[in-house]
Amino acid sequence: MATKAPRRTAQRILDASLALFNRFGEPNVSTTLISSELNISPGNLYYHFPAKEELVNALYDRYEKDLVPLLAAATDIRNIEDAWFFIHSLFEIVWEYRFLYRDLNDLLSRNRRLESEIKDVLLHKTSAFKSLLQGLELSSALQLSAQERQACAVHMVVILTWWLSYEYVRDPRNALENNNAEKSVLKGAVQVLRLLLPYLETKEREHLQLLLKAYDSEQPQL
Amino acid sequence: MATKAPRRTAQRILDASLALFNRFGEPNVSTTLISSELNISPGNLYYHFPAKEELVNALYDRYEKDLVPLLAAATDIRNIEDAWFFIHSLFEIVWEYRFLYRDLNDLLSRNRRLESEIKDVLLHKTSAFKSLLQGLELSSALQLSAQERQACAVHMVVILTWWLSYEYVRDPRNALENNNAEKSVLKGAVQVLRLLLPYLETKEREHLQLLLKAYDSEQPQL
Repeated sequence: MATKAPRRTAQRILDASLALFNRFGEPNVSTTLISSELNISPGNLYYHFPAKEELVNALYDRYEKDLVPLLAAATDIRNIEDAWFFIHSLFEIVWEYRFLYRDLNDLLSRNRRLESEIKDVLLHKTSAFKSLLQGLELSSALQLSAQERQACAVHMVVILTWWLSYEYVRDPRNALENNNAEKSVLKGAVQVLRLLLPYLETKEREHLQLLLKAYDSEQPQL
Repeated sequence: MATKAPRRTAQRILDASLALFNRFGEPNVSTTLISSELNISPGNLYYHFPAKEELVNALYDRYEKDLVPLLAAATDIRNIEDAWFFIHSLFEIVWEYRFLYRDLNDLLSRNRRLESEIKDVLLHKTSAFKSLLQGLELSSALQLSAQERQACAVHMVVILTWWLSYEYVRDPRNALENNNAEKSVLKGAVQVLRLLLPYLETKEREHLQLLLKAYDSEQPQL
């Protein structure tokens, strides 16, 4: 076997850590487990990431790098199809980094950087959802007062951020497993989009109901 | 000092544990801390509760004893004032046992009883919110399809259950402290009630808006 270049090893360590954190929860994964999973020495892992917190922070960098450009795209949304695509893409990122969402309060209480930055992420998500709502208003799909827009955006953020926790409570042994990816992402997106239904004008509401109907017909009711 | 009767001591242990769990999070509170807070020996604590899990379970019993009769009252709701009072009372219980909500996923993953019972609590809350919505329909305050009712009840459950987590992320050092009790309970109740606004008939909507206005005028915008 050829020796891997350092850059490549760091990447592999991050990939393996992300998979283990997502599967078992960050508090339950030790650096020993990560190095044994990768078949490298603890010293090699230590060379790249001297503490587990640095692994978490490097993964958080990746998460932000995926999230920020997507949130910026919220200003281009003009109709329900755009909104659906945007929210679905957001949930794909939430799913990919679900360890951050799974033990959020615990992670925050131990990591200064997350403590200070995750609250900005919530604010950033809130403004993105406000842009989404304003985009729909521009095309007369709905009409909201400033207060309704604010409240609706906050509802969207809470559902986006804690939907996987809701799924986890309902089925702790399966909800966050890899084979549920597609189903979970879709279900979460549907739940956020449903918040818009009562506000939409007739035409757009019927359009969204049509999209939801295709989805619902395949799902058992809660 | 007179010796306390066992019943009394068990009660004091539970009260102190609840306060410490709420303040620092259950994972960060050891039985040693609890006994030292109460000025009793670890042996005395052990006599009443041989493991921390039994403390958690006894507090969970209390939580259920408070929650279940309140949820049953959902069937009597007929108007916005009733709904406001009901949701506010629910948030008081959430606040009182906020340690359960703060580290929910972590607690579940370590405690079989919570793993199996908290999902029933979510279902129970969902049916209570459906009853609330049906009560409002009976008095023509709103009208929903079965699907809208289901979706709205699920939104209400997610906001109720994770609102304090949202507050915690936004301000980890203050959000769950005792001096925020009243403000947090009120703010959470407002956020759940706002979910009803777009569905309400004009008269009831104006009534709710009036209730919310009194609240909003005192709050800074997010």
